[in-house]
Amino acid sequence: MELGMVGLGKMGANMAERLAQGGHKVTGFDPSADARKAVAAKGVAGADSLDALVKALPAPRVLWLMVPAGKITDDTVNALLPLLSKGDTVIDGGNSNYKDTMRRAALYAEHGLGYVDSGTSGGIWGLKEGYSMMVGGDAKTVEALRPIFATLAPGPDQGWGRVGPVGSGHFTKMVHNGIEYGLMQAYAEGFSILGHKQEFGLDLHQIGEIWRYGSVVRSWLLDLTTDALGKNPTMDGIAPYVVDSGEGRWTVSEAIDLDVPAPIITASLIERLRSRDTESFTDKLLSAMRNEFGGHAIKSEPK
Amino acid sequence: MELGMVGLGKMGANMAERLAQGGHKVTGFDPSADARKAVAAKGVAGADSLDALVKALPAPRVLWLMVPAGKITDDTVNALLPLLSKGDTVIDGGNSNYKDTMRRAALYAEHGLGYVDSGTSGGIWGLKEGYSMMVGGDAKTVEALRPIFATLAPGPDQGWGRVGPVGSGHFTKMVHNGIEYGLMQAYAEGFSILGHKQEFGLDLHQIGEIWRYGSVVRSWLLDLTTDALGKNPTMDGIAPYVVDSGEGRWTVSEAIDLDVPAPIITASLIERLRSRDTESFTDKLLSAMRNEFGGHAIKSEPK
Amino acid sequence: MELGMVGLGKMGANMAERLAQGGHKVTGFDPSADARKAVAAKGVAGADSLDALVKALPAPRVLWLMVPAGKITDDTVNALLPLLSKGDTVIDGGNSNYKDTMRRAALYAEHGLGYVDSGTSGGIWGLKEGYSMMVGGDAKTVEALRPIFATLAPGPDQGWGRVGPVGSGHFTKMVHNGIEYGLMQAYAEGFSILGHKQEFGLDLHQIGEIWRYGSVVRSWLLDLTTDALGKNPTMDGIAPYVVDSGEGRWTVSEAIDLDVPAPIITASLIERLRSRDTESFTDKLLSAMRNEFGGHAIKSEPK
Amino acid sequence: MELGMVGLGKMGANMAERLAQGGHKVTGFDPSADARKAVAAKGVAGADSLDALVKALPAPRVLWLMVPAGKITDDTVNALLPLLSKGDTVIDGGNSNYKDTMRRAALYAEHGLGYVDSGTSGGIWGLKEGYSMMVGGDAKTVEALRPIFATLAPGPDQGWGRVGPVGSGHFTKMVHNGIEYGLMQAYAEGFSILGHKQEFGLDLHQIGEIWRYGSVVRSWLLDLTTDALGKNPTMDGIAPYVVDSGEGRWTVSEAIDLDVPAPIITASLIERLRSRDTESFTDKLLSAMRNEFGGHAIKSEPK
Repeated sequence: MELGMVGLGKMGANMAERLAQGGHKVTGFDPSADARKAVAAKGVAGADSLDALVKALPAPRVLWLMVPAGKITDDTVNALLPLLSKGDTVIDGGNSNYKDTMRRAALYAEHGLGYVDSGTSGGIWGLKEGYSMMVGGDAKTVEALRPIFATLAPGPDQGWGRVGPVGSGHFTKMVHNGIEYGLMQAYAEGFSILGHKQEFGLDLHQIGEIWRYGSVVRSWLLDLTTDALGKNPTMDGIAPYVVDSGEGRWTVSEAIDLDVPAPIITASLIERLRSRDTESFTDKLLSAMRNEFGGHAIKSEPK
Repeated sequence: MELGMVGLGKMGANMAERLAQGGHKVTGFDPSADARKAVAAKGVAGADSLDALVKALPAPRVLWLMVPAGKITDDTVNALLPLLSKGDTVIDGGNSNYKDTMRRAALYAEHGLGYVDSGTSGGIWGLKEGYSMMVGGDAKTVEALRPIFATLAPGPDQGWGRVGPVGSGHFTKMVHNGIEYGLMQAYAEGFSILGHKQEFGLDLHQIGEIWRYGSVVRSWLLDLTTDALGKNPTMDGIAPYVVDSGEGRWTVSEAIDLDVPAPIITASLIERLRSRDTESFTDKLLSAMRNEFGGHAIKSEPK
Repeated sequence: MELGMVGLGKMGANMAERLAQGGHKVTGFDPSADARKAVAAKGVAGADSLDALVKALPAPRVLWLMVPAGKITDDTVNALLPLLSKGDTVIDGGNSNYKDTMRRAALYAEHGLGYVDSGTSGGIWGLKEGYSMMVGGDAKTVEALRPIFATLAPGPDQGWGRVGPVGSGHFTKMVHNGIEYGLMQAYAEGFSILGHKQEFGLDLHQIGEIWRYGSVVRSWLLDLTTDALGKNPTMDGIAPYVVDSGEGRWTVSEAIDLDVPAPIITASLIERLRSRDTESFTDKLLSAMRNEFGGHAIKSEPK
Repeated sequence: MELGMVGLGKMGANMAERLAQGGHKVTGFDPSADARKAVAAKGVAGADSLDALVKALPAPRVLWLMVPAGKITDDTVNALLPLLSKGDTVIDGGNSNYKDTMRRAALYAEHGLGYVDSGTSGGIWGLKEGYSMMVGGDAKTVEALRPIFATLAPGPDQGWGRVGPVGSGHFTKMVHNGIEYGLMQAYAEGFSILGHKQEFGLDLHQIGEIWRYGSVVRSWLLDLTTDALGKNPTMDGIAPYVVDSGEGRWTVSEAIDLDVPAPIITASLIERLRSRDTESFTDKLLSAMRNEFGGHAIKSEPK
């Protein structure tokens, strides 16, 4: 098929490359000339504006958005709107909030334009191993895009599927990421406990390797974790600072809205907030309270 | 009554003073001459050894232990054993683990000695306001000690009681402290949220004052918290470092042994551990994992 | 002062009564004639429509809303808008979301109308003991309402205050309720642990009574909890089903938005969701997973 | 090699079979004649007593214990002690607490007997796929057992290793299971959220299948979970009741002892307790408290 890729960052560039390798004709747009140049070497044609990109594609057009969620996605969706023609389809492959996706799809539908959401997992490994894609959208529209998903996925019928109406793809990806937070935290806590048992002098990398084969906790995340432990067993030089990029927050919010208790996913998010709250007012006040009722010494802040 | 106070630290000295004020004849022992001197001014006689203390008391003797839990309590209990006579009673007013208390009481019972545990709450305010005491022990033995408890408590029949057999006093105090962890954490989190809402410019001390009258969350801990916020609204100079002294751990362990889910008390303990884990291996590994699968940047440790 | 009370439910009726007792001239509106009749006996005049209520009040009018948060508050606020005149003020004393309050206040400001939020705590006890009120709004507008707050509060200058601009009162009350969830949960878990230690045969009501005097955990909530334990020590006939009314959810959401870790308040909310999730899909799936990997028996649902 | 298998339950029988398939000469003991008969068909000789088993093995003997942790392991270890001779080695392949293992190993060492712990993961799938084994013990003793581990593991040098001194194998397996609790809970919560989003009508089995290929959350546990969702998408007939078998409790206890915050693993354990606490006293008391302060209705227990 022929397809326009909007956004040639880490993810977009890899996806464009995988599509080109799979025989699709891909034209990519990114405001950065360097980004366009980088994919040119991988067989992806470049367009230096959204307008040029749209013009370069045959109708009905297919555009894949791989841009940051939020304002930039809104800006892009709005900028594309007047450029597109009835029957064209936009796929949002980023990590948009599913409610935003539903709003944007409704707007596009008013103009006879297709809008599909693909929750996309796989990170930087997707280029080689294929992406897992949870797709939301009108069944017919998604079916027409099958060749694209079949190429991006690990196998033509593996690792992707239409899960429901538009929005449901991003919803499913959001929950996927919530689970991911929980899995990561479980491994990290476990290895931390092992590492603190100094009397046993455990080799965390070795233990990760053992678990990779035959154990109940074997997983792709364990493979990567073991790899990280092999490179840097003491996590030397790495700050205890964990970023979160939104999907965890949305999952927690959604769970509460649905009255579903999700203590582990929620706590995993809170731990990330905690990792960045190095001057915790909560803890300072707790220390002050102990002093108030029990006369317990307060530890002073180092100057 | 006449009573020996073993341990004249912050708590023991105050209790000896309150008992002396209440008309009891109190002799105190502490290895520190300064500590003995300090209570002498409050009408508490001094003994410079356990032996001297025991000799100074009329039979049947009553001794109140106010020493740190664990090894020091064991050492004291063992040292007293050969010095005491049938019918004497020892009251452990400290924060001993209830299982240790049951073990010590069994040993004392073999020698015809009484052993009573008093879980004691009230902190440095107890001198003025009276102590809350949860007492465990043989009903007759406890009844004989009524004048002591009646003086130490806020009122003769208020704030103290025999809750069950020996060990049950310390058990109840242990759970009391578990609850205390949860209450403290709830207030501290709440004030932290208020303080972070910068657009409202809230005055935390004022809000504490408002809540002290008529609100559902009014409490003695809130009084103290408000006081602390008045003195130091920004918690300036206080390290976010919260000590725990054992009872919280035991409560968590006991809850699990009893199959009682206690998520809040447990999380409150974990938060204290967290406050001291400033170089969290867990968080470092999480950051490394994000880098492995998504190529996300790792924040470096400052040198 | 003269004031109109909109909503004569449990809270509104009590507040109207306390105001009337305090010498204010109160006219109340409620769609239920019974509710109007009930307050008539307490010296509160009745109006059978919002229109009649507004007409009964001298300009500049003061109206206190005590109606359920959400749609009903919106409906009331919108219905009042055309009835009011420049300089009139509406106080929302209910548990509105502070963002809704800010939106409504902006609308009222466009029409030259005052809008004040009073986060109100005290429950059914407020009639007798006074209400704790966290007030948000324009300083001058709030000052003009001082006689009303002074009467409703436990004391003229106690238990109430202007905490910041409009919205900040409901924000503060929201966090207050988040704290309340945590406090309640801490007590409930503690008493549950005590009750499960069957070998000690503890009397939970007695222990509550002991703690009420001199202990670190003494509080108004403990007073009430002890009272409840006195009436029904085994909680016989009470379903393990805990309602939440919104503020807890908002507090959790706000904490996450502000990047403040609030594990205890959050877990307390989740426990309430959990109490109502008696057919937990999560737990069923966990049981199925154990069967999958370990062949462990699955407990069947009773028919 | 030649080896005696003590315990021919689900795990022991499978391990004996895998060893026999691998060319080892295995004699098995189990008090149940049926269990002995079942393995006979798989090439495993039977012994009808521990004494007969020991006599059937050539010195230096190697015995693998696959019996329930706790009392039965203690009984077996004690019963074997007088039957064994210097140089013999016992491997405990069960889920013993590592502290028990260290105690037993010390006892065996006094008699010149080897004692090795193998934390064994793989469940009922180990027969086919091999077991993951974390081995603790004296390096030379473990090395001598290499042929056994090489056969039981997924590959001769894969999925097993000596991680440290005796006890460290069971310690590592304990933490492994703690992680397992967290992973399971994360998946279960995520699928529960998906299932509650009724408007999207999501097919949980399909989503599991999608995630199995290319996604960040792919794992062996996800394979099994997806399988379970395929067989019974609504978890029909399964009680929301989750058993825990000890290692989770020990992990939580160990984390606290080591001052390592492990909120997720801990919460996962608590959720299992919660699943079985259907008559939660905590929740009943919370409901009673709400009634006390707010007059909120209490939901009654169905008769």
